[in-house]
Amino acid sequence: MSTYQLLLALSALSAFISAASANDPDMLQDVCVADLNSTVKVNGFPCKDKFDAADFSSNVLAKPGATNNTLGSLVTAANVQKVPGLNTLGVSLSRIDYAPGGLNPPHTHPRATEMIFVLEGQLDVGFITTSNTLVSKTVIPGDVFVFPRGLVHFQKNNGAVPAAVIAAFNSQLPGTQSIASTLFGATPPVPDNVLTKAFHIGTKEVTKIKSRLAPKK
Amino acid sequence: MSTYQLLLALSALSAFISAASANDPDMLQDVCVADLNSTVKVNGFPCKDKFDAADFSSNVLAKPGATNNTLGSLVTAANVQKVPGLNTLGVSLSRIDYAPGGLNPPHTHPRATEMIFVLEGQLDVGFITTSNTLVSKTVIPGDVFVFPRGLVHFQKNNGAVPAAVIAAFNSQLPGTQSIASTLFGATPPVPDNVLTKAFHIGTKEVTKIKSRLAPKK
Amino acid sequence: MSTYQLLLALSALSAFISAASANDPDMLQDVCVADLNSTVKVNGFPCKDKFDAADFSSNVLAKPGATNNTLGSLVTAANVQKVPGLNTLGVSLSRIDYAPGGLNPPHTHPRATEMIFVLEGQLDVGFITTSNTLVSKTVIPGDVFVFPRGLVHFQKNNGAVPAAVIAAFNSQLPGTQSIASTLFGATPPVPDNVLTKAFHIGTKEVTKIKSRLAPKK
Amino acid sequence: MSTYQLLLALSALSAFISAASANDPDMLQDVCVADLNSTVKVNGFPCKDKFDAADFSSNVLAKPGATNNTLGSLVTAANVQKVPGLNTLGVSLSRIDYAPGGLNPPHTHPRATEMIFVLEGQLDVGFITTSNTLVSKTVIPGDVFVFPRGLVHFQKNNGAVPAAVIAAFNSQLPGTQSIASTLFGATPPVPDNVLTKAFHIGTKEVTKIKSRLAPKK
Amino acid sequence: MSTYQLLLALSALSAFISAASANDPDMLQDVCVADLNSTVKVNGFPCKDKFDAADFSSNVLAKPGATNNTLGSLVTAANVQKVPGLNTLGVSLSRIDYAPGGLNPPHTHPRATEMIFVLEGQLDVGFITTSNTLVSKTVIPGDVFVFPRGLVHFQKNNGAVPAAVIAAFNSQLPGTQSIASTLFGATPPVPDNVLTKAFHIGTKEVTKIKSRLAPKK
Amino acid sequence: MSTYQLLLALSALSAFISAASANDPDMLQDVCVADLNSTVKVNGFPCKDKFDAADFSSNVLAKPGATNNTLGSLVTAANVQKVPGLNTLGVSLSRIDYAPGGLNPPHTHPRATEMIFVLEGQLDVGFITTSNTLVSKTVIPGDVFVFPRGLVHFQKNNGAVPAAVIAAFNSQLPGTQSIASTLFGATPPVPDNVLTKAFHIGTKEVTKIKSRLAPKK
Repeated sequence: MSTYQLLLALSALSAFISAASANDPDMLQDVCVADLNSTVKVNGFPCKDKFDAADFSSNVLAKPGATNNTLGSLVTAANVQKVPGLNTLGVSLSRIDYAPGGLNPPHTHPRATEMIFVLEGQLDVGFITTSNTLVSKTVIPGDVFVFPRGLVHFQKNNGAVPAAVIAAFNSQLPGTQSIASTLFGATPPVPDNVLTKAFHIGTKEVTKIKSRLAPKK
Repeated sequence: MSTYQLLLALSALSAFISAASANDPDMLQDVCVADLNSTVKVNGFPCKDKFDAADFSSNVLAKPGATNNTLGSLVTAANVQKVPGLNTLGVSLSRIDYAPGGLNPPHTHPRATEMIFVLEGQLDVGFITTSNTLVSKTVIPGDVFVFPRGLVHFQKNNGAVPAAVIAAFNSQLPGTQSIASTLFGATPPVPDNVLTKAFHIGTKEVTKIKSRLAPKK
Repeated sequence: MSTYQLLLALSALSAFISAASANDPDMLQDVCVADLNSTVKVNGFPCKDKFDAADFSSNVLAKPGATNNTLGSLVTAANVQKVPGLNTLGVSLSRIDYAPGGLNPPHTHPRATEMIFVLEGQLDVGFITTSNTLVSKTVIPGDVFVFPRGLVHFQKNNGAVPAAVIAAFNSQLPGTQSIASTLFGATPPVPDNVLTKAFHIGTKEVTKIKSRLAPKK
Repeated sequence: MSTYQLLLALSALSAFISAASANDPDMLQDVCVADLNSTVKVNGFPCKDKFDAADFSSNVLAKPGATNNTLGSLVTAANVQKVPGLNTLGVSLSRIDYAPGGLNPPHTHPRATEMIFVLEGQLDVGFITTSNTLVSKTVIPGDVFVFPRGLVHFQKNNGAVPAAVIAAFNSQLPGTQSIASTLFGATPPVPDNVLTKAFHIGTKEVTKIKSRLAPKK
Repeated sequence: MSTYQLLLALSALSAFISAASANDPDMLQDVCVADLNSTVKVNGFPCKDKFDAADFSSNVLAKPGATNNTLGSLVTAANVQKVPGLNTLGVSLSRIDYAPGGLNPPHTHPRATEMIFVLEGQLDVGFITTSNTLVSKTVIPGDVFVFPRGLVHFQKNNGAVPAAVIAAFNSQLPGTQSIASTLFGATPPVPDNVLTKAFHIGTKEVTKIKSRLAPKK
Repeated sequence: MSTYQLLLALSALSAFISAASANDPDMLQDVCVADLNSTVKVNGFPCKDKFDAADFSSNVLAKPGATNNTLGSLVTAANVQKVPGLNTLGVSLSRIDYAPGGLNPPHTHPRATEMIFVLEGQLDVGFITTSNTLVSKTVIPGDVFVFPRGLVHFQKNNGAVPAAVIAAFNSQLPGTQSIASTLFGATPPVPDNVLTKAFHIGTKEVTKIKSRLAPKK
């Protein structure tokens, strides 16, 4: 098995674990609590034989995420991987924390619409339609804002204090494709000549951006 | 036109306005912002010709709802009727406020799963499966809990301080069927002999409950 | 393992068996006949390797159900648990029999619309919208009536002779949440203070109703 | 406007009226009662402003259909065109009557699974899978049988007495494509060389069959 | 085990393998590459643990199919059985080749709409609505044409040179029910009296057609 | 009305026209041919009163697109806007032409999976999963390749001769969000500090890329 195959295999495995959805198929019973460790893999997850209330609850969103990273933001997910009772139910939540100046960079959710509720701070938020119209607004605590399924969107904390939101998705596992790291940090890498031509930049600039967005070892 | 027909017509109209959904049909364009005043009625809403960022935002959830009512709770919705940009996007939010002792009484959402995030206070929450199993838990700030689509559920503030949650739904208009007022406060009324036989109580008790849950004039 | 855990486990198991759906996901092959005994549990059922015509047929609806019970009615289901060929096909049937005076008490199907055809007798039927409008009618043999998905509905035989209907559902396993026994007969029980506050009745009355709707040992 | 265009226009109109569906999109409100006379046409039907219980009921299935025709059978539909309350609700019923010897000839429902309940008589029923397997059975009063969505199926009364069934569909308008008249009775006609080659018969035989299945003037 | 049961079992197996779909359920992760050899059968296919780019590609459509058969046409499919990466993704392709005079005989796809692109040659194509309207056209290289889900349709090469199309389906496994062989070549056979009555032909003619469309041993 | 509002209005209009979908809702009649000029806007399009075969066909894909542009590629769509019969049917086609060196730059289809068939030339194609794995391959004439719904993907002609593909989508209007022009060419523009932080580049570089990807006047 080559290194490339190994990488692919590992990536495939993590793709399977970290991926997402929107407008999930309807359930065929009251509940089908995810058996996250099943050796059988299906669309979503097989169901556990037994469950209790803990399967429908979690405290992973209780504490602010650590925002002392390059982007100054952190997304914490309460999706089917953390709340197995969500399997087949078509909804999930995240919390997003932002340091002052922090950015949740342009990204898409391939399979979910997102609706945020601002817990604290102030954010400049926006999405871009397929006709390249930016729809944007400044939101403050108590405001809600909607990002339609599949469209590129972002949130930027241009305020002086931390910000935080609760984000709702109509999928048990909404997935996130962060544009910059998707293009400049993929494994194997996206060919340079795709990126130079798409962004009208030189190979040197591509190399520089790639080095900054390289996957963490 | 008889009074009965008038009541029905009025009810139909309000039914149309206050109803709800779960696992909504997929969108066929980026966005289809609801034209809430269109004379043409369709599944969901027709789309407006023009929109801006305000159609995707709202501050209706910013302030705690007034809980000085009989139940000691209030649900405030940010659904397609308040955020027209939600039309075709399959998601919405509510906030629910609870006085100490307050109850969001047993109810269903005919067409949505609900997932709550506790903002403050402490709540005893639960849902009942179709095999009459109560799945319940005490949740505290930062906790999430899931209520599967169509199943009866409730939240009770047994704590000494107010409580509040943000509730996410996988429908643009999740609808609420509050069990007690549905059965004892409908117009025209549900026949007494249906209620006495279902609840194994006497006509006198039915009359008493009906008087307490009568629709507000 | 505590008694509570045991009850939950048993309930979960039966929830899995008795639950239901509406607008089921589409099939991905001609047929996927349910393997009702598979150790792997998924949304719906895995498929058997072999099938024959018997998997698509049943005579469970052939005989009137015994209506000599408290409510004077009995629902007999021909769903995926009885007709395994229904798996992935999104439809099922029931027959409901009513003694004179019999009641199919207020209930919901969390995941299916229901449409009845009256075989014999006369019934007062109705559903209540989320705006608390009762839509009701007296139906006679040959009549059809529709109960929209997720809404509370009932049928009452106020006639002098037995009645019977065939009920169609757009789900392979529509599920039933009977309101009174859901609230007053759940295991573990719904807390008294939820029921007293919701129905504006005293604890004594709650205890009385609970005793009458207690789950059969 | 040519005769051909006129025929197409008329056919299109009737196609619109007589067509059907399976696994209909979910509703976005409690009910959306079809406005059958709306000048605006949409997927399904726009909703009426007002409705009452009559919109959810019908007696069109009450009487046996007249079976004194060539095939000795008649299908009577209680779909959205007869029960406008069915719009967006994803279900409908038909009754089918069969004279002794009568046949409901091989046909498909492009967008619905069908499940029958035998009211009286005896029927030989079957469907054929896409791998050309006939799945067939003799059914008697009280039996149910399932015909998966889109697959060719038929019912034949080989008994000495009339037969009748109630048929349930998971679509508000299931549509019927009767194979023989589709191929040999279409307007404009299916070219002879398509039929001779498909059925391995001569032009003379095609002409003969066409004359017998010609559309009624 | 009887021969009949064996035939049924074999047919069921092949049905499972050769069947099809339209408007498939949404995916719940990025990809769920079909494990075509899994002993667990589900709606669609379980997912493999590992995958690579080869799972999303194929060259089965690269070469024209052999059209030296009775009908003068051949359909080659690139569906989930050949491209396992298609599992849960709701799309597939076929190529169809036609000798001069060749016919892709009247058939349906129970669960998919089809859209063709003409690669070469000229074809007379058409579909028939449920109101028996033929919608037909002559298409030439570069033309596209649409066949709505579930409706009977055909393509005939009345030109002097070979023709070929690429056909797209909105299902991972669209399935094909070829009308003539479904009715006259099924195993077990469709009863003669169903076919004589449906097509208004004699038993002798039915026997003749059956002999020509008999399943290949 | 401000310039900003005017831009938004114009963009909204074009968004409405150019947007897209994946896994479209099922049809509720045989066909619902889009009335592209209707003043009533709905999810998808209202239906025309009359139609003929031309509504289901088009020759817009017949000729290679002009590739003498900056990227050296052109996408030509045969979607519901060009083939109105596609409305409600959930499928569409495009052809993509590539000059030598040409690039169809990284983009997503928010609501459709794409499957290509290579007509001529050689292409390096790939998609990136949400776990940043590049799945890529070189494809040659006759090959097919799949790009899962919502994931970033691209095609690059690194060969010496022109290339062309036919692309199938499981949506009537799949939409395209071209990443570079979405981020650097939106109107109003995406704020510089979002782009500098996301791509780890300076304001000067952002300005340069923006100038090259500015919307055409």
